[in-house]
Amino acid sequence: MRIARIPVVVGVSNAGTANLATLSAAAMDAGAAGVMVAPSQGLKTEAQIVAYYDEVIKTLGTSVPVVYQDYPQATSVNISIECLLRLIDKHPSLVMLKHEDCPGLRKLTQVRTECAKPEHRRISILVGNGGLYLPQELQRGADGAMTGFAFPEMLVRVCRMHAAGHGRAAEDIFDAYLPLVRHEAQPGIGIAIRKEILRRRGAIKTAAVRRPGPKLDSTDMRELDVLLARLEKRLAANDQIAAE
Amino acid sequence: MRIARIPVVVGVSNAGTANLATLSAAAMDAGAAGVMVAPSQGLKTEAQIVAYYDEVIKTLGTSVPVVYQDYPQATSVNISIECLLRLIDKHPSLVMLKHEDCPGLRKLTQVRTECAKPEHRRISILVGNGGLYLPQELQRGADGAMTGFAFPEMLVRVCRMHAAGHGRAAEDIFDAYLPLVRHEAQPGIGIAIRKEILRRRGAIKTAAVRRPGPKLDSTDMRELDVLLARLEKRLAANDQIAAE
Amino acid sequence: MRIARIPVVVGVSNAGTANLATLSAAAMDAGAAGVMVAPSQGLKTEAQIVAYYDEVIKTLGTSVPVVYQDYPQATSVNISIECLLRLIDKHPSLVMLKHEDCPGLRKLTQVRTECAKPEHRRISILVGNGGLYLPQELQRGADGAMTGFAFPEMLVRVCRMHAAGHGRAAEDIFDAYLPLVRHEAQPGIGIAIRKEILRRRGAIKTAAVRRPGPKLDSTDMRELDVLLARLEKRLAANDQIAAE
Amino acid sequence: MRIARIPVVVGVSNAGTANLATLSAAAMDAGAAGVMVAPSQGLKTEAQIVAYYDEVIKTLGTSVPVVYQDYPQATSVNISIECLLRLIDKHPSLVMLKHEDCPGLRKLTQVRTECAKPEHRRISILVGNGGLYLPQELQRGADGAMTGFAFPEMLVRVCRMHAAGHGRAAEDIFDAYLPLVRHEAQPGIGIAIRKEILRRRGAIKTAAVRRPGPKLDSTDMRELDVLLARLEKRLAANDQIAAE
Repeated sequence: MRIARIPVVVGVSNAGTANLATLSAAAMDAGAAGVMVAPSQGLKTEAQIVAYYDEVIKTLGTSVPVVYQDYPQATSVNISIECLLRLIDKHPSLVMLKHEDCPGLRKLTQVRTECAKPEHRRISILVGNGGLYLPQELQRGADGAMTGFAFPEMLVRVCRMHAAGHGRAAEDIFDAYLPLVRHEAQPGIGIAIRKEILRRRGAIKTAAVRRPGPKLDSTDMRELDVLLARLEKRLAANDQIAAE
Repeated sequence: MRIARIPVVVGVSNAGTANLATLSAAAMDAGAAGVMVAPSQGLKTEAQIVAYYDEVIKTLGTSVPVVYQDYPQATSVNISIECLLRLIDKHPSLVMLKHEDCPGLRKLTQVRTECAKPEHRRISILVGNGGLYLPQELQRGADGAMTGFAFPEMLVRVCRMHAAGHGRAAEDIFDAYLPLVRHEAQPGIGIAIRKEILRRRGAIKTAAVRRPGPKLDSTDMRELDVLLARLEKRLAANDQIAAE
Repeated sequence: MRIARIPVVVGVSNAGTANLATLSAAAMDAGAAGVMVAPSQGLKTEAQIVAYYDEVIKTLGTSVPVVYQDYPQATSVNISIECLLRLIDKHPSLVMLKHEDCPGLRKLTQVRTECAKPEHRRISILVGNGGLYLPQELQRGADGAMTGFAFPEMLVRVCRMHAAGHGRAAEDIFDAYLPLVRHEAQPGIGIAIRKEILRRRGAIKTAAVRRPGPKLDSTDMRELDVLLARLEKRLAANDQIAAE
Repeated sequence: MRIARIPVVVGVSNAGTANLATLSAAAMDAGAAGVMVAPSQGLKTEAQIVAYYDEVIKTLGTSVPVVYQDYPQATSVNISIECLLRLIDKHPSLVMLKHEDCPGLRKLTQVRTECAKPEHRRISILVGNGGLYLPQELQRGADGAMTGFAFPEMLVRVCRMHAAGHGRAAEDIFDAYLPLVRHEAQPGIGIAIRKEILRRRGAIKTAAVRRPGPKLDSTDMRELDVLLARLEKRLAANDQIAAE
């Protein structure tokens, strides 16, 4: 089996810079390709965001590749395009944006457009949020996804097909899965749904979520049965259309 | 033209009971079928929620049908099943739940199950949140939808087909629209997308959103073109399958 | 009676620019000295804050004096010094800051320091938050207070004495009232406390707070009796010391 | 030196019950008198709060004394009197309330009143929030304080004097410190102020706050000098009055 070439980015977000540095060192020692850092909750202004990443990157050293996680729904920290560009210009080790702002499609376009200008530089953009807007995000310049979904092969396939110029077919596949993408995107219970599907697929042994997390009841289970049966049927129909 | 028979429920939510009563009186005088009241922001406990609705309903009088809007994402007020049942038991004029909690599927099932018991009574449940989970909600006992979407005829058709026992076909139709349902569900920009579609369909003259609201740019417009073309194609394919 | 010379600033904050402009016109026609505008909830970046005030001031016209209300606890909008200076530089009609950020003492110093530089210009700074940090704020350059307290004559006296160079004595007076300032600063119930004191002082006829607002119970009343008696005793002691 | 008899309660709040149990076992093994558990963020209804503590206490075992930390400003979980009483009735090992709700004075009175009824049982109540309302809280039935302040001897003295029936004199002492209590109560910078005072008093060697925490600048330092000098003067004046 050859899986060694898949780069792994480790989330090390922590309010305290010292802890963040310790976690990062451990991750990099273990072979991580880089670390992902969300802005610490409580940062209120662009100057504070810049100061925070200045300190984080100074502490990590410039040889550790850093991903900026832009997830204001969780962090309550909003970064503007202008501020993100300041960080990119200042810190060569900031090499990727994990894009999870919502609504975020225009922001993605703007980051991509600005970074293409000679005064800035290109960074990678991977999207999160369960991939709920993946086709639109790829069309606007995202490089891929870095998110949870019970059928990761769909994410891979959609990204590859898009990269190969088959955007429409990629979106057809995505749309077939969309009812489940949406179902998993429910806050809280979504993680239990994802784990249950992964369990049914044999990827994990138990669907248990860390206590006191959510548990699926019998109604949730029957609902999931229906959604999975519908997915199978639709994928079969898609294949038939492709074969015709 | 006969449109008079469509009942209209008017949202009159207001932190102050006096304003709420004035708005309600105006709405009922104008022919409203009832009023919708969300719990006032700042209510923190079940006892406070009950006291608030006690006062509201005392002020309105018991002849005004009241809808409880359960939308904690906007109000920051969470109501439990137990508390909702207390309100239903106490106030016969509370006749409907607008269900918008998320995750909320299990809550919907629980309200429906509890209200079917002899010690309580049935209330109507209409769902919101742009209809993102409409098929699942109908299957769990919702009576219909009361929400915004640029193709309201889809919501009507899905509800009618479900009521007629054609749940699978209803969900097929829903799924065809799901990419757009999801697209409109984006916070902020979603309202501008909905208005632009309604404008294109001839339902409204201008897509302008109240300043300083969002505006679609040329990228947003092209993206919408693609999504609408895909919808048309898929609806045609659905019709063909149905015809075969 | 001559009260005409007291300038009145009217709060006209509204998410919609059109409503805001209508309210402002009514206020200015009625003799207001200016209008106070808080940033609309939902503004997330400095560019958005600047764009919002650009539009507001364009709509109001440059002859209407504008106060920026910096109250992130209520608006969830945080403005940096840099962004505030951009607004001040761009808009001559922005003439005052209502300072209510907390912690906010350093911010006040920074605004005062930056505005004293030749590339910017002086603006007035009045403080809010019930005056809880008034002496410190005056020492850091605030021009006065614009806030609610049941003994407004204390606010006036402290500001005047500070302006006259008697900062220590001003703080002695403030400290005598501090237990009540703190008591009124309680969220929610504070407004009922303030109205009850104003009623006891004969300033208003009823202490009723708009329904469903808070009401003082008998324990609250007795507690207030004690706090007011303590204030009286302490003011008498202060006067005695001053007389010695 | 004899300090062994001071009971120590260790905060072990954690969203995951398994981690919470591990931390508790470590704390109890190290000699803790009990553990303090705040409700996990995301609990939305009273039924969920009860279920959470049911699980926590089942996991800890009934021999570990538990403190309920009621601090909705940080947890976003509001507990009603009714719900707290349910927990107290159900779980004999729940022996203390750390009271930090704000506004919270009436709640304190209600808990104390209800717990005095024969159908419930007495629990200890210690107050937090930096002691900002300590005299009022003691008068309403609190047993003491469990909070941070740079002069802990004031908290001890005020509680002891109140318990000895000298409530007025206790409040005189408290009021002398109130300008500093309020100064330390500033969010964020408050912890840096407290550490700087503790450093000046010789209690700690450095006032450094964990990065990227706040640091006092020279203006903050001068302001603190003035506040501390005023405190000293006022304590001296109090002593003189007491001596007369």
